[in-house]
Amino acid sequence: MQASIITIGDEILIGQIVDTNSVWLSKELNKAGIIVKEIRSIGDDREQIISAINDLFKISDFVFITGGLGPTKDDITKHVLCELFDCRLILNDDALQNLERLLGERGIEINEQNYSQAMVPEKSKVFVNKVGTACGMMLKRGEKLLFSMPGVPFEVKYLTKYEFVPYIKQTYKLGEIFHKTILTSGLPEAVLAEKISDWENSLPEEIKLAFLPTPGYVRLRISIYNANSELLALAEKKIKELKNIIPKCFKSSDDFCIAELVGTKLSEYGKTVSTAESCTGGKIASLIVENAGSSNYFKGSVVAYDDEVKTNVLKVDTQIIKKYGAVSLQVVEAMAKGVRKLMKTDYAISVSGIAGPGGGTPDKPVGTVCIGIATPQKTYSQKFLFFYDRKINIIRTANTALLMLIDELNQLNTN
Amino acid sequence: MQASIITIGDEILIGQIVDTNSVWLSKELNKAGIIVKEIRSIGDDREQIISAINDLFKISDFVFITGGLGPTKDDITKHVLCELFDCRLILNDDALQNLERLLGERGIEINEQNYSQAMVPEKSKVFVNKVGTACGMMLKRGEKLLFSMPGVPFEVKYLTKYEFVPYIKQTYKLGEIFHKTILTSGLPEAVLAEKISDWENSLPEEIKLAFLPTPGYVRLRISIYNANSELLALAEKKIKELKNIIPKCFKSSDDFCIAELVGTKLSEYGKTVSTAESCTGGKIASLIVENAGSSNYFKGSVVAYDDEVKTNVLKVDTQIIKKYGAVSLQVVEAMAKGVRKLMKTDYAISVSGIAGPGGGTPDKPVGTVCIGIATPQKTYSQKFLFFYDRKINIIRTANTALLMLIDELNQLNTN
Repeated sequence: MQASIITIGDEILIGQIVDTNSVWLSKELNKAGIIVKEIRSIGDDREQIISAINDLFKISDFVFITGGLGPTKDDITKHVLCELFDCRLILNDDALQNLERLLGERGIEINEQNYSQAMVPEKSKVFVNKVGTACGMMLKRGEKLLFSMPGVPFEVKYLTKYEFVPYIKQTYKLGEIFHKTILTSGLPEAVLAEKISDWENSLPEEIKLAFLPTPGYVRLRISIYNANSELLALAEKKIKELKNIIPKCFKSSDDFCIAELVGTKLSEYGKTVSTAESCTGGKIASLIVENAGSSNYFKGSVVAYDDEVKTNVLKVDTQIIKKYGAVSLQVVEAMAKGVRKLMKTDYAISVSGIAGPGGGTPDKPVGTVCIGIATPQKTYSQKFLFFYDRKINIIRTANTALLMLIDELNQLNTN
Repeated sequence: MQASIITIGDEILIGQIVDTNSVWLSKELNKAGIIVKEIRSIGDDREQIISAINDLFKISDFVFITGGLGPTKDDITKHVLCELFDCRLILNDDALQNLERLLGERGIEINEQNYSQAMVPEKSKVFVNKVGTACGMMLKRGEKLLFSMPGVPFEVKYLTKYEFVPYIKQTYKLGEIFHKTILTSGLPEAVLAEKISDWENSLPEEIKLAFLPTPGYVRLRISIYNANSELLALAEKKIKELKNIIPKCFKSSDDFCIAELVGTKLSEYGKTVSTAESCTGGKIASLIVENAGSSNYFKGSVVAYDDEVKTNVLKVDTQIIKKYGAVSLQVVEAMAKGVRKLMKTDYAISVSGIAGPGGGTPDKPVGTVCIGIATPQKTYSQKFLFFYDRKINIIRTANTALLMLIDELNQLNTN
């Protein structure tokens, strides 16, 4: 079964927001065994909506539309659906009740604009949206299905997860697709590709490989189509083979993002971590905390953006800063030791660097970053030079620091 | 002039990565006066690439393609371009030189896979990509232009900003589009829409309004097409009118994201800030630090995820935590005071909350968040209840805290 996604709304086309809905939808549909063939972002434009729906029905069994259902006058999706499916807008009682309940909870009286949100194309099946004022709708064209929902991300999640996908699963038998993601670091994409090309060529047709480079590491995605137990076992065997080909670069095959991987390993060994961050400004800590359950292994962080915080809170010797500069191996080691002691954790990560665009010198150009790791046994550090803009330098630094901790934690395993 | 964007690569379709390239490209093209009509994400699939290019040339003057130029075997874009534009792949000397230089700097020897990156369709004009191994290419169909580039975000930025857009500007005369973004908070989208509907209807055809809801606030985007000085003056006048209609909700018309707005205001008044964060885990600090120049007003943060950090580092009285709980107005006020004193800043923001999915109680369900603000004169706090998943609760909390600080800083203006 194949699907396509249409996102309606000018905000994506003018670059105001990132289309996170399509990412989430694609992941969710893939998990259910539905292959996503195409994603289109278009404006609130009648002709583009019509041709997108017509085109995508040609290559997909299901078309998912997000957006264009808001209460404001630029939202025209429902009118276009009426035109395409040859019916009129009618008031839906379930949608109205839901709307009244939601507005009531917020102490808001129903107004004309809100009221319009309970109107649906007559031929549509309505899925009540418990978390929002615009409902989900389904329309049929022969055996093919069109699903329409609002563009608000948590409403997309609610309707897809609890209404649309369960409906599809009841109605159709879906083949399964499995994805495994392998985290590698230390080799750029092209070098890695050459190193494992024989291995890649040995994969059967049902197992596909993709290279996903990210600032700081490359993920390898293995997709197993029409998966059965034999193919899954073969994929596991192949992953083991790969680990032997690139033992140092192979970090994990657990489908975790790196902050999750850090969390899993710390939980597994019953260890804790803290961070001392200068140029990343709390990014490492916030990546760790994004994962539920982080209170089991994360105690806290000192964002020491100002040198005074480095000396007063983290107890870094002012003489060290004077002698080596705030961006130096000596300072990050002192920061790591300092925060580890202050927060009483087993491990600590520290960073100091010049994220840019200002602050570079001939000796320490923009992109110079020092990362320190403190463990119960030792403290060490490493210097890097990154080449990107401020935001990418920050995320690359955060990822690299987390990878250094993963390497450290992996040694617990072999000991 | 109108453009469309095609992103090639399975990673978007399976939901592995967010398509940040299209967002950035759209913003950049809009700035240059080019309207983006459609964005399509497709796989490395010959037929889809061909029909996307053919379809989009019908509605746009320029088609931008990202991705599918990597050294690995699933990248087929160049072959498809040869087919569509009826030519063959040839070795390009400039591209080869650039490739050798880049690999040389990294100490990597050229291999067969890399070498293929210097091959281009014979009819294309090559734009050397100083920051990456795959070059930019342009092909003509009549008066219309196709631009092809790799999918790596900073390479997209480099080629578009320094090569493609300057080339277009040299070749065509572009009309200008201006966007102004107004930050509002305190009213949900539908209520805001009703409140300002008369004002919206009074806008001339060349000025368009869009509602952009985000966790914690709603932005209003005003777009001025074919802008001339008269229209720009009218838009300014209309924005002033709007401010009088929603004086409390109108936070800024400066096109800043809220962390930037905080930074601009702090710089303007020569004030500094620090943060003490529990459930946001450093997110507020990292949003502030994302902006260049933040060292002028941001000193640092204590991420006090563990209660021991709240008491030991921020000097929150253990009795207060015992009596009121870690998520309480009393505790966030003590955290704000504590970090303000520790970091010696004018202002401090503090948060403590239950981001979920675990940790909720009947008294304090998931989504309960307390935010504190400390100023040179006073300390105060507010309690909120959010309804979303962990990541959204975190970003909503961070945004709400920054908005509270903006309200506080706005008072400096009126005093």
